[in-house]
Amino acid sequence: MMAGRGRMQAIAAAMLVVSVGATPAADRRLPAAESPSDVLARSAPSDWRALDPENTLYLELTAGRVVIELAPSFAPGHVANIKALVRAHYFDGLNIIRVQDNYVVQWGDPDGKRDSGTALRAGPPEFFRPLQRAAAFHALQEKDVYAPQVGFVDSWPVARNPATGQEWLTHCYSMLGVGRDTAPDSGSGVELYVVIGHAPRQLDRNVTLSGRVLRAIELLSSLPRGTGNLGFYESADQYVPIRSMSVAADLSPQQRIDLELLRSDAPIFADYLRALRSRSAAWFVEPTDRLEICNARIPVRVKP
Amino acid sequence: MMAGRGRMQAIAAAMLVVSVGATPAADRRLPAAESPSDVLARSAPSDWRALDPENTLYLELTAGRVVIELAPSFAPGHVANIKALVRAHYFDGLNIIRVQDNYVVQWGDPDGKRDSGTALRAGPPEFFRPLQRAAAFHALQEKDVYAPQVGFVDSWPVARNPATGQEWLTHCYSMLGVGRDTAPDSGSGVELYVVIGHAPRQLDRNVTLSGRVLRAIELLSSLPRGTGNLGFYESADQYVPIRSMSVAADLSPQQRIDLELLRSDAPIFADYLRALRSRSAAWFVEPTDRLEICNARIPVRVKP
Repeated sequence: MMAGRGRMQAIAAAMLVVSVGATPAADRRLPAAESPSDVLARSAPSDWRALDPENTLYLELTAGRVVIELAPSFAPGHVANIKALVRAHYFDGLNIIRVQDNYVVQWGDPDGKRDSGTALRAGPPEFFRPLQRAAAFHALQEKDVYAPQVGFVDSWPVARNPATGQEWLTHCYSMLGVGRDTAPDSGSGVELYVVIGHAPRQLDRNVTLSGRVLRAIELLSSLPRGTGNLGFYESADQYVPIRSMSVAADLSPQQRIDLELLRSDAPIFADYLRALRSRSAAWFVEPTDRLEICNARIPVRVKP
Repeated sequence: MMAGRGRMQAIAAAMLVVSVGATPAADRRLPAAESPSDVLARSAPSDWRALDPENTLYLELTAGRVVIELAPSFAPGHVANIKALVRAHYFDGLNIIRVQDNYVVQWGDPDGKRDSGTALRAGPPEFFRPLQRAAAFHALQEKDVYAPQVGFVDSWPVARNPATGQEWLTHCYSMLGVGRDTAPDSGSGVELYVVIGHAPRQLDRNVTLSGRVLRAIELLSSLPRGTGNLGFYESADQYVPIRSMSVAADLSPQQRIDLELLRSDAPIFADYLRALRSRSAAWFVEPTDRLEICNARIPVRVKP
């Protein structure tokens, strides 16, 4: 909401309805008086799923730790590559080399000279996977601009095309992709990027998405933009050093951050989406009653 | 595109088509071999429109100048208010007080104590305007999640609803809005925000959009995120000072930056959108052939 700091209390409560448009807002809003945070407040522990430490990465910057969840069920080959690179300390001492406004942050080896050791250099693209059973798919009721169907699978944003038998992760804010050259199979994982702008959905099915940032993306999104072509930093003194990357499972439990995600297969998830649509807070005059896939952010929390 | 810096040359040219999906990409791509930059390269001077200095604001930060275009045809009352405030030096010496990741940057008076002088304190909301003649509207062929129709009017991103007779600016990246309290008519212009994340379209028709940033938005989007509630900075020493705001018309021509926008009513505009859809560059394996309103960024340039 767009209010001054001292005034937020005024926003929270009652059902003040001010009808500005032709549609009577009150009629639509009454059945869904819960706010998104109301819904989360009544969630049960079983409505949340923990991250798997074996598929969680920590990107350690001077400013702090960025937590990444990998998506082995969508990109098993690339996830295996990335983990192999991380465990070979490939990224330690490398840098963030590109920050393009409203687009991506990218890190890797600008010279392409670092030996990636036994880690695979490239693999077949994993731009999509075969359509999975519909039961696991929580469809959004809304149409999508880019795909026949969108929704969530295991709390990941997913698009589907029944006609082609494909489903794929969508390029929403925070998604982690594997940079590649012109050849579709040239993405090995030595160049990684994170979306920090409006969803560049034109990249869907053109890059292998392999995960997403779930914590401290602001350490990436607030970096100075690169002034070179495509937002690359123009000199090495602008680079943002990567202290290390690690797989959470390789750290002691005390060194980890235990995050949880709201489960898209829990019944409460539909209530959460409904609350996002209906925006019952008094501040909203005309709730859109619509939800676009990349605006349906999955709640994340530190395990209580 | 998501490639390493040294490899960009490989991306530019030919029509290498690699079909991965069920739809033969080559069939779709051949009629539209131009890239977006190809289209712009053959544009005529008349395909561009200059900003009106009387409706252009300069937000001067220590780091540089942010250029804002106002939208008097959509929000005449709020634009008049904002200009009156700017000309009364209301913002000079105030601060950016809120930076919420993937959402907004906001500036104004955190204490709400500064006298706004003769500037109006609030006015009727301008959340939408009556539907204008269709001839001025360049419709996107795609459906939109949030509105019955979307497209461009005078190079602004616009949604329309013929059933209610309304049209309104959409909350795309870079749009400038007028913060308000719970009452719809409480937005005076003393609190302004800019969208720096995925389009929060749920705000459409709930806030008066009054303009957009056309240059140097990175000076806003790369600011440290506030750690307080809603991204407000928690202490005054985190504030980002505003040296001044001014109306471009009040400066000498030598002090201005003359920007131009691609005209949405020029025939070349359809070619530009088609190029965004078809993505003829060899790097793209599966162009989506779709375009979402907030991904259809209007080209801006310094007047040659």
